[in-house]
Amino acid sequence: MSWTVYLSGEIHTDWRERIERGCADAGLELTFYGPVTDHAASDDCGVAILGPEGKPFWKDHLGAGVNAIRTRSLLEASDVVVVRFGEQYRQWNAAFDAGYAAALGKPLITLHPEEHDHALKEVDRAALVVAREPEQVVDVLRYVLDGTLPARPQA
Amino acid sequence: MSWTVYLSGEIHTDWRERIERGCADAGLELTFYGPVTDHAASDDCGVAILGPEGKPFWKDHLGAGVNAIRTRSLLEASDVVVVRFGEQYRQWNAAFDAGYAAALGKPLITLHPEEHDHALKEVDRAALVVAREPEQVVDVLRYVLDGTLPARPQA
Amino acid sequence: MSWTVYLSGEIHTDWRERIERGCADAGLELTFYGPVTDHAASDDCGVAILGPEGKPFWKDHLGAGVNAIRTRSLLEASDVVVVRFGEQYRQWNAAFDAGYAAALGKPLITLHPEEHDHALKEVDRAALVVAREPEQVVDVLRYVLDGTLPARPQA
Amino acid sequence: MSWTVYLSGEIHTDWRERIERGCADAGLELTFYGPVTDHAASDDCGVAILGPEGKPFWKDHLGAGVNAIRTRSLLEASDVVVVRFGEQYRQWNAAFDAGYAAALGKPLITLHPEEHDHALKEVDRAALVVAREPEQVVDVLRYVLDGTLPARPQA
Amino acid sequence: MSWTVYLSGEIHTDWRERIERGCADAGLELTFYGPVTDHAASDDCGVAILGPEGKPFWKDHLGAGVNAIRTRSLLEASDVVVVRFGEQYRQWNAAFDAGYAAALGKPLITLHPEEHDHALKEVDRAALVVAREPEQVVDVLRYVLDGTLPARPQA
Amino acid sequence: MSWTVYLSGEIHTDWRERIERGCADAGLELTFYGPVTDHAASDDCGVAILGPEGKPFWKDHLGAGVNAIRTRSLLEASDVVVVRFGEQYRQWNAAFDAGYAAALGKPLITLHPEEHDHALKEVDRAALVVAREPEQVVDVLRYVLDGTLPARPQA
Amino acid sequence: MSWTVYLSGEIHTDWRERIERGCADAGLELTFYGPVTDHAASDDCGVAILGPEGKPFWKDHLGAGVNAIRTRSLLEASDVVVVRFGEQYRQWNAAFDAGYAAALGKPLITLHPEEHDHALKEVDRAALVVAREPEQVVDVLRYVLDGTLPARPQA
Amino acid sequence: MSWTVYLSGEIHTDWRERIERGCADAGLELTFYGPVTDHAASDDCGVAILGPEGKPFWKDHLGAGVNAIRTRSLLEASDVVVVRFGEQYRQWNAAFDAGYAAALGKPLITLHPEEHDHALKEVDRAALVVAREPEQVVDVLRYVLDGTLPARPQA
Repeated sequence: MSWTVYLSGEIHTDWRERIERGCADAGLELTFYGPVTDHAASDDCGVAILGPEGKPFWKDHLGAGVNAIRTRSLLEASDVVVVRFGEQYRQWNAAFDAGYAAALGKPLITLHPEEHDHALKEVDRAALVVAREPEQVVDVLRYVLDGTLPARPQA
Repeated sequence: MSWTVYLSGEIHTDWRERIERGCADAGLELTFYGPVTDHAASDDCGVAILGPEGKPFWKDHLGAGVNAIRTRSLLEASDVVVVRFGEQYRQWNAAFDAGYAAALGKPLITLHPEEHDHALKEVDRAALVVAREPEQVVDVLRYVLDGTLPARPQA
Repeated sequence: MSWTVYLSGEIHTDWRERIERGCADAGLELTFYGPVTDHAASDDCGVAILGPEGKPFWKDHLGAGVNAIRTRSLLEASDVVVVRFGEQYRQWNAAFDAGYAAALGKPLITLHPEEHDHALKEVDRAALVVAREPEQVVDVLRYVLDGTLPARPQA
Repeated sequence: MSWTVYLSGEIHTDWRERIERGCADAGLELTFYGPVTDHAASDDCGVAILGPEGKPFWKDHLGAGVNAIRTRSLLEASDVVVVRFGEQYRQWNAAFDAGYAAALGKPLITLHPEEHDHALKEVDRAALVVAREPEQVVDVLRYVLDGTLPARPQA
Repeated sequence: MSWTVYLSGEIHTDWRERIERGCADAGLELTFYGPVTDHAASDDCGVAILGPEGKPFWKDHLGAGVNAIRTRSLLEASDVVVVRFGEQYRQWNAAFDAGYAAALGKPLITLHPEEHDHALKEVDRAALVVAREPEQVVDVLRYVLDGTLPARPQA
Repeated sequence: MSWTVYLSGEIHTDWRERIERGCADAGLELTFYGPVTDHAASDDCGVAILGPEGKPFWKDHLGAGVNAIRTRSLLEASDVVVVRFGEQYRQWNAAFDAGYAAALGKPLITLHPEEHDHALKEVDRAALVVAREPEQVVDVLRYVLDGTLPARPQA
Repeated sequence: MSWTVYLSGEIHTDWRERIERGCADAGLELTFYGPVTDHAASDDCGVAILGPEGKPFWKDHLGAGVNAIRTRSLLEASDVVVVRFGEQYRQWNAAFDAGYAAALGKPLITLHPEEHDHALKEVDRAALVVAREPEQVVDVLRYVLDGTLPARPQA
Repeated sequence: MSWTVYLSGEIHTDWRERIERGCADAGLELTFYGPVTDHAASDDCGVAILGPEGKPFWKDHLGAGVNAIRTRSLLEASDVVVVRFGEQYRQWNAAFDAGYAAALGKPLITLHPEEHDHALKEVDRAALVVAREPEQVVDVLRYVLDGTLPARPQA
């Protein structure tokens, strides 16, 4: 099985790179999917392609439609979905993806600091793993693919 | 068809009552479902039933499991899902329910003030209606069931 | 089994009434669903409930969202879908409903004059019955429910 | 993910070629599917293979069956469905495909001039993108696959 | 649970009556569905409603379409499917219904004499019960609903 | 929503009665389903209805087929599945039902003493609640239906 | 799309070879699946692998189980299902496969002489093409894959 | 078709190796999946990756979550599921997998000694083959893929 992993959520830190690099270092053969992480492109894609729109609501609506073609298709094509909640912003989009993945029966990994535990309790309950660090996600994927556990001491 | 409507999200204002009362006043025959809205009961249900748990994370986990029996069953049994995002709190649970409903193909109505428009753009894109006031949800449901439009001037 | 029948398509002739009356006269116990057939209400429902919209495209978009809550829910809840193509207008909505019903595996009856046969050949191929007159739809439903055939000579 | 795109609808202009060429020029790796666009072959395939049929209705019925093997299989195998409505003809087949794709949950792009906006409002509401020009579809696909936006000024 | 049972297959002996009477005598609350068992009506329903058709193939085609609205809907609405193969005729329709029910995951009971065992081995393998007499089907349904076994000695 | 609960597993203690009585005492409106709990009838139902079978394997096979009509239908018709693992026997059937329910996405409650925790860890991971006593299941169901928590002190 | 075609039914004439050779001659890239067509092996596979069984019914049951692993898997993995009814035998297995394929929504081609038309009318109604000769199936597949029609005069 | 086979259940004997070696010797092209069979790693994976947990129940819970990502994904990606019940331990996990596979409609092969026949009768009834030795599973897979039967005398 050629595993595919969707990385949803926060776009302002390097968590995606840390997971991708860690998996590459571990020699894991998997493919990562995710949303467009260029914030400006993601916001502007609707009007940049389809033409200007006066109201911000419709500008967002156009862009969200274009983004949804990518995100829903890739999420549905993934074997595992990782959803990252960072320390800032409302990140409703991440929670929406988690709910979407849960309803599709996708194995779900959440990744967030302890401070969000209570607010995320329903989301975490739908997950098979709640991780704190990207490196733990790497370890989970290595175990899932290869059955090997980390030698390094856990944080 | 006997319509059922799931009311998800914010539990600190009277929006559910306004929708239920408005529909009753309009003579609409529908059934409303939703989560347990007693905040303390919702937080404590796990340990109150299954016994004390030392760590907050596992206390939340137990409670979220009990709540999920109710919320997923009722949401899946509903014909329309309304998700309310209020002015406070992170409300990831609401966004999770919206994603869950969207993946199931449920008609989705979001209800929130304009200030959240940009943050909710992906969620709104998955909705068939974005409403601002509970009374607009009543009007949508009346039209959906009876085909009649409101006489009163719109806000 | 308590049969439900969705009547989709043309809204400018009395074909729905002829089917409903014919079934009532035949003593058939079934429930009819359909879109809101008040043309003005159907066009205006979005802005009438959600507030004015400058561009016609977005006005239509709002209204189509509200209508879709009704039409998709009722169509999905139906046992049989009848789609009527009249002599005028483009009626893409009717063909859309036919495709939607076909993908859901709903038994489909199309109802249209011979002049549309060639243009509707793919739609008709997905149907189990192609009828010319509403009274034939009544006869089909009577046979499906009661197993009795019409005594009157066929047109 | 190796993307596949189904191009449904109008067969009398060069819109398919413009999309395919544009995507090739952009270096996008995707596969295009669609119906047989040789109008005469599409009309005659039933009787040419299965033998002559007296009535036009049954000739069309035979041909539509043969075509449906191709079109439904390819549409169901596609990741994205683009439906083009041209300036002429009734094009019920295109609307049928749009409804079929919508019911399957396929991301849908419609492509048509503004003059059809009102007649297509329900179809457009089920789409994630409404485009006016084939080049906009190319831009959407490039963004979806590569995350890049067009440099050229929008029409 | 209010059980519904679809009785498919042979229409020339009284097996349906024996099952229905036996269940009534046992006080079981269930509903029986099945095809139209008036052979002439079943053959003629297409042309009787939709008008004459010259070729026998198309006459059959019209009739089979009308019958399919009834049979597929009722079979899909059933909790248990009983398929009877009698001593005569090819009864491909019965085997088709068995395959249809099996693919839907419906609990399947076949009912046929031993002489057909070898020819029906694939069909029987998909069944949960292979019965020889209608009274055995009654006994199965009584056990399934009430948990009681027959007092009378088995044939 | 009229809730139905399937009670699977151990048949040698009174846990079903304790749950049913407790729910009745709490005034909860729900329906309980389950397998035939008369051990002898459950073992003999195949040969008692369909006639004697020499080999024990085939006797069991016949009986399991008859039982499966009941158990799969009722389990699939249930909103919540409770699986009880007692102190004796292998109870593979209970674990099979748990897996079946999990794959269908049914909310799952397991009920077993702590001594089985390690052996049941995969089954428990698929459950939303792990209970120790039937009265806890009653409390969960009361909360799920009515939102009320138990007043009595927890064991 | 890499097409796969399941060839179900009659095993005593060379119709499979004629279709496979015809498609090879036409340069079509497709893969053919089907049951084991060695009649003796198909009958004996159960007892040959799992050990002798006294009763013919159980011998058949064992063999049908082994065959079902192959046939259901390959049929479900196919894009098109062709079912051949020959001039002899009851061929309930072929009709079962047709029903199974129809319930899965697979495009179905039946292949049989006119003499079976009336007996197969329900099966044919579920098919998109009714062919008389294997060469017509080749022509259909060529058109479906390549869009080209046969030059040779039709029989 | 490139077959994949999931090998679930007992991890203390060499049955997996015997099946994999036998299939390799027979020249069968298939891929085997299964759980992590290193007992200690499987038990510890949760805390080894996610950090220590005081209560054994939660330690097991963490580990079962990590394992479930692997086992559910691979089981769902398999064409055939083989479940082995050995002579010791409770093996509820194996029965859970069998139920999970059955609900997904996966062809199921059980593998166990006769002494478990009665306790496994419901599980066996859901299987297409009940084997006693790993070599019989090899023979079944060879027949399913190649249509050839074993030359060697059966045990």
